[in-house]
Amino acid sequence: MSRILTGIQSSGRPHLGNILGAIKPAIELSKQADNESFLFIADLHSLTTIKDGPTRREFTRAVAATWLAFGLDTQKNTFWRQSRVAEHTELAWHLSCFTPIPMLNNATSFKEKSERSSGPVNTGLFVYPVLQAADILLYDAEIIPVGKDQRQHIEMTRDIASAFNRQYEEDVFVLPEARIDDRLMTIPGIDGAKMSKSYNNYIDIFLPENELWKVIKKIKSDSTPLEEPKNPDTDITFQLYSLLASNEQVQEMRRLYEGGNYGYGTAKKAFYELLLAQFATERERYTYYMTNPNALEAELQAGEAKARIIAGRTIARVREKLGFN
Amino acid sequence: MSRILTGIQSSGRPHLGNILGAIKPAIELSKQADNESFLFIADLHSLTTIKDGPTRREFTRAVAATWLAFGLDTQKNTFWRQSRVAEHTELAWHLSCFTPIPMLNNATSFKEKSERSSGPVNTGLFVYPVLQAADILLYDAEIIPVGKDQRQHIEMTRDIASAFNRQYEEDVFVLPEARIDDRLMTIPGIDGAKMSKSYNNYIDIFLPENELWKVIKKIKSDSTPLEEPKNPDTDITFQLYSLLASNEQVQEMRRLYEGGNYGYGTAKKAFYELLLAQFATERERYTYYMTNPNALEAELQAGEAKARIIAGRTIARVREKLGFN
Repeated sequence: MSRILTGIQSSGRPHLGNILGAIKPAIELSKQADNESFLFIADLHSLTTIKDGPTRREFTRAVAATWLAFGLDTQKNTFWRQSRVAEHTELAWHLSCFTPIPMLNNATSFKEKSERSSGPVNTGLFVYPVLQAADILLYDAEIIPVGKDQRQHIEMTRDIASAFNRQYEEDVFVLPEARIDDRLMTIPGIDGAKMSKSYNNYIDIFLPENELWKVIKKIKSDSTPLEEPKNPDTDITFQLYSLLASNEQVQEMRRLYEGGNYGYGTAKKAFYELLLAQFATERERYTYYMTNPNALEAELQAGEAKARIIAGRTIARVREKLGFN
Repeated sequence: MSRILTGIQSSGRPHLGNILGAIKPAIELSKQADNESFLFIADLHSLTTIKDGPTRREFTRAVAATWLAFGLDTQKNTFWRQSRVAEHTELAWHLSCFTPIPMLNNATSFKEKSERSSGPVNTGLFVYPVLQAADILLYDAEIIPVGKDQRQHIEMTRDIASAFNRQYEEDVFVLPEARIDDRLMTIPGIDGAKMSKSYNNYIDIFLPENELWKVIKKIKSDSTPLEEPKNPDTDITFQLYSLLASNEQVQEMRRLYEGGNYGYGTAKKAFYELLLAQFATERERYTYYMTNPNALEAELQAGEAKARIIAGRTIARVREKLGFN
C-alpha cells in the first residue's frame, strides 16, 4: 500500500484543464488497489495570494464539489481542508526551526514570485515550502505526484525531514519521493495557449448550458471558408474534441474536417454536445453539492476527522522528541 | 480592566535575576485590582535555540513551578504553555500572509542574532516576530510590559494587526501598547556583571542549601584585610543583600562594612541566610511542584483550558474574515 499525497490548489474554480490534467489522473491513481490517496484542499496556502473571505469560501466549495463530482472515493481515501486540521500549522512552526533561511531564499518559485511582484511580497510566500513540508510529513506520505516546477519543494521537504531525523537520531519522518509525470497533458485553452485561469481562456464545464455554449463558440479558429478542407491538426476545437472523444469519433471528425463543407461552428457544436454528454453525471453531482452545502460539509468533515487521526499520531511523535509533551 | 500579556522565556531555570527583575514585578502587576494578566510560557519560541526535548521539558517545568511558587494567582489570571494552544501557530500562519518580508529583515534582534551566528540561522528565528504577534493578538492584549529591546517587536505586532484590520475594514484585532519600564532593576551576578544564564554568574535560589552556599561563597570580593573598613558601595555581596533586606538591615550592614573587623565571608553568610529566610515559602512550594508533576500539570492544564476559550473566540473572528469557516 503506497501513500500518495496531493495538495489541491484552491485559487479558483476548477476548469477543464485542471480536470483533465490533474483531477482525473489523481482520481485514477487513487482507485488503484495498492494505493491510498491523501488529497487535501490547500486553502491555507491560498491565503498567500487571496485575501477575500467570500472568494476563498466559494473556491474551496467549488474545488471540493468538483472532486466529489468526479467520483473521488472518500471511504478508501482521505479528503480534507488543510485549514481544518490544526496540526498543519503546528508542524510548520516546528519544521521552521529546522529550516536554514538560505534554503528558502534559494527556492526558485519564491525568487520568481518576488521578481514578478511590484511591491514587497508577504512572509507567507517565503515560508510556503515549510508549510508544504508539514503537509507532506504529517501523513507519512511516500509518493508526491508533482509537476517539474515542484520538484525542488519536495527536495526541500526531504532536506528538512532529514535534518530533523538526524537531530533526534531516529526516523521520525518518512522521506517522500517526488513522482514527476512527464506525460502530463497540457490542455489548450480557447485561444490555443495553455488553459489557465490567469489567461482567462478556460472552459468551466459546470456552467449552465447556454453560458457554456457561449464559451465554446469563442474557441479560436482560422478563416478557411466553409466549403474548403480544413486541417484538424492545427485546429483548437479539434484538439479539445480529441481529448474527450473515442478513437472512432476522432477519426470521424478528422474525415469531416478534411472533406470540406464542414464548418468550425458545427465542430464546436459537436464538442459542446460531447462535453454535455460526457460530463452529464459530473454536472449533476456538482450541482448537487453546490446546492446542498450540508452534504458537501459532511463529506469534508468526515475526511477531516480521518486526517486528524493520522496527523495527530505524527504530531504526538514530534512533540515527544521536542519535549512538548 | 486592562489586559496585560507577558511571554515568559523558557530557555533556562529562572535565577534570582529573573525573579527580582521580571517575575516578582509581573506578579505584583497581576495582583492590581484593575488588571487581568495573561502569562504564557513561550516554549514554542524556545525551539529556535533549544533542540533537546528533555532539556525543554525540564526548563518548562522549572519555569512554571517558579511562577507558582511566587504566588501567581491562576484563578484571577491565565497561565499556560504556548505549545498547548494550537491557535498560536494557526494565527501565526495567517498573519505571515499580512507581513511584508522587509519588516522581518529589518528586525534588529534578528539582525543581531544572524550576525552573531557562525552558520546560517533557522527560519524560526526569522519569523519569530510573527509568532509573537499571534501570541499577543490572540488575547486582545492591551498592554505588553517589555524591555527596550522588545519595543520594535510590539511595533511590528501593531503594523501587522493594522494591515489586517485595514484589509477587512474592521477592528478584528486590538492594537497593543508596549509599556517600557525604564526603572527595571539590573541584578548583578556573582562576578558583578549583569546576572545572566549565559555569563554563568547566576544564583539559583532553589538549590539545596549546601549547593546554594557554595555559590554564594563564590561572590567576588576585593582583598581588603579583615580588620580594615570596607566600601559597601563597591561590593557585590552588599549590593545583592540590599536588594532583599529591609532598610534597617541594609543600614546595619553598611555600618558593619564601614567599621572594619567585618569580613566578606560573614557578609556572604548573612546574605545566604537572608535568602533562605526570605524565600523559605517559595523554596518549599517550588519543591512541591517539582516533585508533584501532576499538581503542576493540573495548574497548567486549567490555564490552557481558559486560554483556549479566549484564543478560540479570536480565531473564530479571524477565520470568518478569511473565509475559513
